[in-house]
Amino acid sequence: MNIALDMMGGDYAPQEAVKGVAEYLANNSTNVHLTLIGNQQQIEECIQTNPLPAGNYTIVHAEQVIEMNEHPTKALKEKQQSSIAIGFNLLAGGKTDAFISAGNTGAMMVGALFSIKTIEGVLRPTIGAYMPREDGKLGLLVDVGLNADSKPENLNQFAILGSLFSKHILGFDNPQVGLVNLGEEEGKGNLLAQATYSLLKENNKINFKGNIEGRDILTAKAEVMVCDGFTGNVVLKLAESIYDITQRRHINDEHFNRFNFEIYGGVPVLGVAKPVIIGHGISHSIAFKNMLVTAQRMLETNLMERIKESFVG
Amino acid sequence: MNIALDMMGGDYAPQEAVKGVAEYLANNSTNVHLTLIGNQQQIEECIQTNPLPAGNYTIVHAEQVIEMNEHPTKALKEKQQSSIAIGFNLLAGGKTDAFISAGNTGAMMVGALFSIKTIEGVLRPTIGAYMPREDGKLGLLVDVGLNADSKPENLNQFAILGSLFSKHILGFDNPQVGLVNLGEEEGKGNLLAQATYSLLKENNKINFKGNIEGRDILTAKAEVMVCDGFTGNVVLKLAESIYDITQRRHINDEHFNRFNFEIYGGVPVLGVAKPVIIGHGISHSIAFKNMLVTAQRMLETNLMERIKESFVG
Repeated sequence: MNIALDMMGGDYAPQEAVKGVAEYLANNSTNVHLTLIGNQQQIEECIQTNPLPAGNYTIVHAEQVIEMNEHPTKALKEKQQSSIAIGFNLLAGGKTDAFISAGNTGAMMVGALFSIKTIEGVLRPTIGAYMPREDGKLGLLVDVGLNADSKPENLNQFAILGSLFSKHILGFDNPQVGLVNLGEEEGKGNLLAQATYSLLKENNKINFKGNIEGRDILTAKAEVMVCDGFTGNVVLKLAESIYDITQRRHINDEHFNRFNFEIYGGVPVLGVAKPVIIGHGISHSIAFKNMLVTAQRMLETNLMERIKESFVG
Repeated sequence: MNIALDMMGGDYAPQEAVKGVAEYLANNSTNVHLTLIGNQQQIEECIQTNPLPAGNYTIVHAEQVIEMNEHPTKALKEKQQSSIAIGFNLLAGGKTDAFISAGNTGAMMVGALFSIKTIEGVLRPTIGAYMPREDGKLGLLVDVGLNADSKPENLNQFAILGSLFSKHILGFDNPQVGLVNLGEEEGKGNLLAQATYSLLKENNKINFKGNIEGRDILTAKAEVMVCDGFTGNVVLKLAESIYDITQRRHINDEHFNRFNFEIYGGVPVLGVAKPVIIGHGISHSIAFKNMLVTAQRMLETNLMERIKESFVG
């Protein structure tokens, strides 16, 4: 397995990326090889203070960096020597098996959608977000912004993609799918939710539980929570802000600390043919380490094959 | 001023409603007269333990109660002797000036929309919710569920209605309006948000600030936050659930305690010709008292006239 990591992405790159790699490799008993993409000199300087086991990694030099505020499509087209562009080229060409970056989110989305093929049958790939539950596990909210305008058939597919991720990566045997809605009863909701309900009910590839409300998103009511990308994005950012408020209020609580979304490291783009993980801009070493672990698990569990099978069948 | 209160609405009626009336009247230096609608015997029993100053109230007996789980339209039509139906009849007939209930939310919405005229020019009335801010003030999120499917021109009007409420009731001089969106830049968002942005930008009746994100909803970034009723409902219920989590985690924090939405007592239906306030099912005396205070303020500030002027001009 060869997992590529953009060393220049995120607010504390490449220092924290190197630290994360060191932490990952320290616990790595498998034969994962890492491809570290970025400014070679800067990376090597960081390695001097955070030594990495030789033989476990290769550095691929990138002349350029796509900055956080650059226009995604334009930057990706014009900066062919950027770490993100190189990352997608290596992945698309089969030189690596997965690609991770905490850099420009838009560029990562564009790259995932246009460099990597969408799995046959998938209408629109999606991005989910973890939702911390009081039982210590993680729910998955999907979509959280890749699809601002979604159709019922999109949401129906997000439910399948999310269920497979929840099962193989988050460890739920038969994850329950909830449709985010404004009431519990069937028939409630806006036109999108009403039409989606009918599709989810008939979908035998998922374990559909019914509607869930906003109050259920942070509970264990459903493992996979489906909504359009507009609603999901607002919910995700609201949930993120709760952690900021607890910090400002000097509240140190084990559960609320899990609202520090940075620790999860990022979420994969689901529905594209290869693992692509998009990290949070504010990523410290633990985030990079966790993204590497997720990518490894996605490869080990053959998640992409599971998704392909599901959309063929 | 004659404010009518449904004494049978809410989980702890009529006991807590009577207590709330007692607390309100104890501080009432104005000449507000209250019309208490409900089962006369039950109300009078409660008054024996919570004496009310004679002359400040009249009891109007109601034979029936619309239960929380009844179908709104059906119940309102069939139970003409219910406290809610009587309340709307008195208000529509000009016998009272405002109506408050913590009973069946759907029946209250249906009653407000069909018994009380919509103000001329208002396409769709709306319901907002308070959002607690760290500066101790309250933001207003509008719509939170009356309009699951909203059009850009609806959201544009919600912004006007919300601004007038924020100014006259919540005390903001020139409230800033933020459009809830998935990014800050103009041009972001789903089709609805993009189209709404253009309308808000041209709307000279409001102080439009631009887009706000989910992370800004619980901050002081905008006093009036506009979104479709689906998104708003999910956000409101998510925010309500935060308080439940803090309670389960035994967190006692002055700010997070303000996420106990019950204390605000309820929010008015904005855009109908007379003050109608819909309370939370779980309403204790403070909720009833606060709803009475809000109704009084709506009458004192002539909010309905302010809204009419705004939609004529």
